Amino acid sequence: MEAKMARLVMKFGGTSVGDIERIRNVAQHVKREIDAGHEVAVVVSAMAGTTNQLVAWAREMAPLHDAREYDAIVATGEQVTVGLLSIELQRIGVSARSWLGWQIPIRTDNAHGAARIQEIDGTALIERLARKEVAVIAGFQGLAPDNRITTLGRGGSDTSAVAVAAAIHADRCDIYTDVDGVYTTDPRIVAKARKLDKISYEEMLEMASLGAKVLQTRSVELAMVHRVRLQVRSSFDAPDAAQGNGPEATGPGTLVCDEDEILEQQVVSGIAYSKDEAKVTLVKVEDKPGVAARVFGPLADAAINVDMIIQNVSDDGRSTDITFTVPQAELTRAEDVIRKLQAGIGCKEVKTDLNVVKVSIIGIGMRSHAGVAKTMFQTLAEKGINILAITTSEIKVSVLISSEYTELAVRALHTAYDLDAG
Amino acid sequence: MEAKMARLVMKFGGTSVGDIERIRNVAQHVKREIDAGHEVAVVVSAMAGTTNQLVAWAREMAPLHDAREYDAIVATGEQVTVGLLSIELQRIGVSARSWLGWQIPIRTDNAHGAARIQEIDGTALIERLARKEVAVIAGFQGLAPDNRITTLGRGGSDTSAVAVAAAIHADRCDIYTDVDGVYTTDPRIVAKARKLDKISYEEMLEMASLGAKVLQTRSVELAMVHRVRLQVRSSFDAPDAAQGNGPEATGPGTLVCDEDEILEQQVVSGIAYSKDEAKVTLVKVEDKPGVAARVFGPLADAAINVDMIIQNVSDDGRSTDITFTVPQAELTRAEDVIRKLQAGIGCKEVKTDLNVVKVSIIGIGMRSHAGVAKTMFQTLAEKGINILAITTSEIKVSVLISSEYTELAVRALHTAYDLDAG
Repeated sequence: MEAKMARLVMKFGGTSVGDIERIRNVAQHVKREIDAGHEVAVVVSAMAGTTNQLVAWAREMAPLHDAREYDAIVATGEQVTVGLLSIELQRIGVSARSWLGWQIPIRTDNAHGAARIQEIDGTALIERLARKEVAVIAGFQGLAPDNRITTLGRGGSDTSAVAVAAAIHADRCDIYTDVDGVYTTDPRIVAKARKLDKISYEEMLEMASLGAKVLQTRSVELAMVHRVRLQVRSSFDAPDAAQGNGPEATGPGTLVCDEDEILEQQVVSGIAYSKDEAKVTLVKVEDKPGVAARVFGPLADAAINVDMIIQNVSDDGRSTDITFTVPQAELTRAEDVIRKLQAGIGCKEVKTDLNVVKVSIIGIGMRSHAGVAKTMFQTLAEKGINILAITTSEIKVSVLISSEYTELAVRALHTAYDLDAG
Repeated sequence: MEAKMARLVMKFGGTSVGDIERIRNVAQHVKREIDAGHEVAVVVSAMAGTTNQLVAWAREMAPLHDAREYDAIVATGEQVTVGLLSIELQRIGVSARSWLGWQIPIRTDNAHGAARIQEIDGTALIERLARKEVAVIAGFQGLAPDNRITTLGRGGSDTSAVAVAAAIHADRCDIYTDVDGVYTTDPRIVAKARKLDKISYEEMLEMASLGAKVLQTRSVELAMVHRVRLQVRSSFDAPDAAQGNGPEATGPGTLVCDEDEILEQQVVSGIAYSKDEAKVTLVKVEDKPGVAARVFGPLADAAINVDMIIQNVSDDGRSTDITFTVPQAELTRAEDVIRKLQAGIGCKEVKTDLNVVKVSIIGIGMRSHAGVAKTMFQTLAEKGINILAITTSEIKVSVLISSEYTELAVRALHTAYDLDAG
């Protein structure tokens, strides 16, 4: 095979570099691409378990601690991995060197613990890649304006990889993970789930933010903005079985790319679900202008992410019920906010419910096809599933239902939208 | 007590920061000095055991590995400790921040794994110390000219502490360790060994290089050059029992200082011994001009540290025996060198002996007192101990003896030079 020389970023998560043997396996994956004539930058996470140990020490020292010190401690996990992987690459005859966030540098803002990448100067990396030296880059970390180490928050290595790929104008960014691609839905629920060969950025973004764990939302956003082609693939394949492949090849796994690259587009590409929802109902609130603002203003001020909202006229005609959903982790804070304004809006009672799930259908094809939502509602109605709330966007429809119907709903929708394999 | 405000460097080794509770204890030591009104920079090692684990991983990855990658891996140990100690100091109300080698920066040469500090800009540290912010500095590490992390070699945190003390013009550098000071000799051998209140740089340097483990040789050299007053003291004393003390106080432990500060100087201050010696004898070498150069030239070229040398005329009058000592770790390499040149110098046989020990008496007083060595030789003769070789310098006399006499010789000399306690 005569493949065009490509510049690749390869990203490996904590499980893929979990011990010495697995790091050796990662090195074989890298060698395969180098042998195929490509330029390679590798982005790695900390060895699985390491970060948890470091976080535990910081918490034991003091439950409330300086985020700058936390970042200095936690960033050591990736520092160890890049050193070990570089040693292994050299051992098997591949030229390589490690790069820490501050050495490149990967410049971020100063939001320690959850920093955002602002700028990466790719000049030095590009120069060394051209000499066929593999750049082994510590993911998850960067350098704040005050010269201190930052971390990007859990899962930030995906974001590091995409940002590096953009900075060095990589032809593709391969995200090696413990699944072999992006599926039409969760294969643990639907045995007939199909692996997608390609998916558009927009759809992947919705899938990630609606509960699919395969990629971090921020990394998909960044890939979309910079048009970085992302390949999601398994790190547990034998490295020599998977062929090195050039920028044009699709290869194994799933390619996340521009929709123009996807010729046969389904109307619905995937079904996502999220159990991380809490439903809050304010019973019998006075029905007068401005009441919604008086509820949702303070929630927004408290940085609580309100997702779905429904307002029903109450039986008596003079009051209304307001229902909304928030992430489960934010429920306690939301209740605190509501309790303070409850009397002021004449609210009789506040009900909460954790036994809800949000099920979503996602597809770029919805833009040009009518009746997509209707199929969803009909399918659920046929199974006797009551819809508690609905939200839509240009390429998705989400419904809130009782969580006991999760599997039933996802399976029925998967069949209804013709996604079942074989 | 009205103590003058002082600027202190406090150094804690791996055992002193071995776990969370010990790090809390270190923070109490620091708080004591801050409460006494002093400015404090703390230099810490990695938590005991951490460095060994990191080194083991690097070796498992590849026995021969890139020293630059090794340094990046191993330097994480200190990075974790500075973060944890800063968190603990903040928790107990002491303003503090961590500093990594590259942040200050501590500039070194590029001899990875055993780098030497070349320059530390103390400006930023001094400015922050003046605001009573404790500088928590990672020992053992620095920054090479090419922007990569270096380490100073095992025990390098002592050197870091002294270099920082010189850079910030500290009044004193306190080395907290697992012993409570410098003794006249090893207390495990001589029960009557006395703790010294003060010892001169020159004597400490000889003691360190002759086998006393309490301080790293390089750190004493650096302290002598920059006239940094070093206090060796125990980190296991209760932090509140030890009083904070100003620059003039001697405090607990042993002060390593300029000889001018030591009023009552003994002729001999201490007895050191080193079992890390190997004796090599080249039997019946041709006795003609240039033969010594033909032996010791190649050994020097191979970077082997030859210590003591004796040349005896042989019985037959036409040949000579050459005996010398090298560190045990270098014996195999020395034998390789000798084997290559053996035929060329007409050497009949090469004998080696590991059962030897070097015993040394050390004292600045020797400069102005005659007969010091004579007492040593007499004492050993009275005990029936044969001297195999002798070397001297201005302030020390060393003899090589059979290692079975180690304890006997050290005890006898300790008594002969009037060093016994009580």
